[in-house]
Amino acid sequence: MPQGVVAGSIPLFAGHPSPDLLPIDDLQRIILSAWDAPNVARFLNYGDEQGNRRLIEFLVERLNRAEDLGVSRENLMIIGGSTWGVGMVTQHLAAPGDAVLVDAPSYRDALHIFRDHRLKIRAAPIDDEGIIVADLERSLRKLAAAGAAPRFYYVVPNFQNPSGITMSRERRLAVIELSRQYNFAIVEDDVYSDLRFEGAAPPSFYDLAGGENVLRLGTFSKTLAPGLRIGWLIAAADRIAGFVESGMLRMGGGANPFTAAVVTDYCRSGAWEAHVQWLRGQYERRRDIALAALEASMPAGVTWTRPRGGYFIWLRLPSSAHVDALEERARGQGVYFASGKGFYVDPADGTRQLRLSFSFVPLPDLRSGIEVLGELIARMAA
Amino acid sequence: MPQGVVAGSIPLFAGHPSPDLLPIDDLQRIILSAWDAPNVARFLNYGDEQGNRRLIEFLVERLNRAEDLGVSRENLMIIGGSTWGVGMVTQHLAAPGDAVLVDAPSYRDALHIFRDHRLKIRAAPIDDEGIIVADLERSLRKLAAAGAAPRFYYVVPNFQNPSGITMSRERRLAVIELSRQYNFAIVEDDVYSDLRFEGAAPPSFYDLAGGENVLRLGTFSKTLAPGLRIGWLIAAADRIAGFVESGMLRMGGGANPFTAAVVTDYCRSGAWEAHVQWLRGQYERRRDIALAALEASMPAGVTWTRPRGGYFIWLRLPSSAHVDALEERARGQGVYFASGKGFYVDPADGTRQLRLSFSFVPLPDLRSGIEVLGELIARMAA
Repeated sequence: MPQGVVAGSIPLFAGHPSPDLLPIDDLQRIILSAWDAPNVARFLNYGDEQGNRRLIEFLVERLNRAEDLGVSRENLMIIGGSTWGVGMVTQHLAAPGDAVLVDAPSYRDALHIFRDHRLKIRAAPIDDEGIIVADLERSLRKLAAAGAAPRFYYVVPNFQNPSGITMSRERRLAVIELSRQYNFAIVEDDVYSDLRFEGAAPPSFYDLAGGENVLRLGTFSKTLAPGLRIGWLIAAADRIAGFVESGMLRMGGGANPFTAAVVTDYCRSGAWEAHVQWLRGQYERRRDIALAALEASMPAGVTWTRPRGGYFIWLRLPSSAHVDALEERARGQGVYFASGKGFYVDPADGTRQLRLSFSFVPLPDLRSGIEVLGELIARMAA
Repeated sequence: MPQGVVAGSIPLFAGHPSPDLLPIDDLQRIILSAWDAPNVARFLNYGDEQGNRRLIEFLVERLNRAEDLGVSRENLMIIGGSTWGVGMVTQHLAAPGDAVLVDAPSYRDALHIFRDHRLKIRAAPIDDEGIIVADLERSLRKLAAAGAAPRFYYVVPNFQNPSGITMSRERRLAVIELSRQYNFAIVEDDVYSDLRFEGAAPPSFYDLAGGENVLRLGTFSKTLAPGLRIGWLIAAADRIAGFVESGMLRMGGGANPFTAAVVTDYCRSGAWEAHVQWLRGQYERRRDIALAALEASMPAGVTWTRPRGGYFIWLRLPSSAHVDALEERARGQGVYFASGKGFYVDPADGTRQLRLSFSFVPLPDLRSGIEVLGELIARMAA
């Protein structure tokens, strides 16, 4: 249960996988079958700084096969979930006072990390195709005029958190062009791309840029289990080498050797790809239920995104409904959502928006939670 | 096998536990006995930001019982090994250009982390009782005169890495006095205190300072298994709350939920304290073998520390033996140690020192590795 939620409530804010979507029995089988002393002794000790070698090989092979990405082992390292990657990359690329570019709205907890690093956060709005390039460019010109170099652009490119929107190929190319002109890196937090229900994926920033100045993060948190804390980072070989040689990796060893070994065996058994295939259907069904409930419950004036993958739907409220008032009333009925305010640099920009997650709550709660919200919004509009 | 070491060699540099000191069977038993679906589903998902609650309770109870420390749950959080803590605390307490205080010699990988954060590292020498207070004070006066505030003093207080030295109670009190006068925090990386072979432990900095402005790190890496990546941080409640509310913890959840659950069950079964008791004897035997081999093998002019716990012995070479030359010749015979140069801000200060670890290599290798070094040094002195 995510923190701060009382039993019996409906946490539509939670970006967690539903407990019934975790492959518990398969993981137990994997742990048992791999448990022989010399093997386990290795993975209970400090690990290679770059991370589990067999997992690196597995991921490189899969990326090259699925995306024709052309990466080699020098381009990939294992990390303790994509959070580890965002922290490491932020620490490496930027110092307090530097600027970072983000979407508006953007992933709340990433904004939090950038604030913790005392970065200046500059946002440009998104539409259904992702960041609006003219606004990004205006922001870049202003920064340049002020002598402030942006260090990187942070983006969740596919099924964005919070909006569910996927950035188009054209927008990606335009951003890459700007990144070369204004000399900033692109940090592509690719958390949800494996959970695509329909349509084709645009090539990643990493792919479109030929790997140049792009750092792409991936994770097993949404397609296997968050509690194992395993993800990966793809970047130019010299960048990977720099991270691998960092003090943090020298001191602590590679990312989570024990759970990385479990994930490795799970993946190499073929179980992961089968599980991802199954998960896509499960999450698609959840999205469909959420969209049907929205269609049935929401009064006129409410609009929402129709994500083709991932975990999230983004709602826009009519002007009569302030998100604070809705949040308070919903809480009174045990329904929780993520207020739009947290996803903007200036919370005032998010007072008519909210994020619904269809990943976590039981299906009946998904329907009834959305119904409760629909009734509350209708009453506020009346 | 630690990285960069060829098979058949003797890695006396490795600060790893020996594979035969990892409680592999007990961990398997713990994982199996705890494997029921609702339980495991919790620990495969995102965890509480402060970390596993039952592990926090266990550690609080143990610290209060063993040390009469008077901490409560608000004073402790679970972290992904003490490395995580050093990174988090450094990021939180200091910005690029700030000064950090360390011992000379000091733990190499921590120096590396401070360099990665672009801190100014100021070191004061240690003797057999720890940091020499007059030198530390001189350094502080210089910093104050230059208008540069030191943010924190980093120390491995017990069985220091690399020297094996434990700082005396009097020195600790003097450092705390200076920390109040010059307003810096104390980061106490207490990795080895559970591995005490003899004598009584001085109270921790945290204890002596009444918890004020001290951040104390602990870890299961040396007394259970590094590959699980679990440790803890003790600090004032408001500091812990600040870390728990950080973007990194909000985004990724608490430290390594799955392995934290394994460690929790292991500890609460009583197995950990029994294992630590057993480990003390094992490492004491290793230290005794190393000291006996040094006594038997080293020519006149070589001196070394006699640690009362931990993993490390620190050697001082006669002026005839440069550590680089010794390193090269030892490598030729398959023996590796940690050159003293890495443990100083200025590597030139460490050209007559080296660190031997007695924790990792098989016992016959521990003896023969030291014999090889003794012969090489004797030849260099001749």
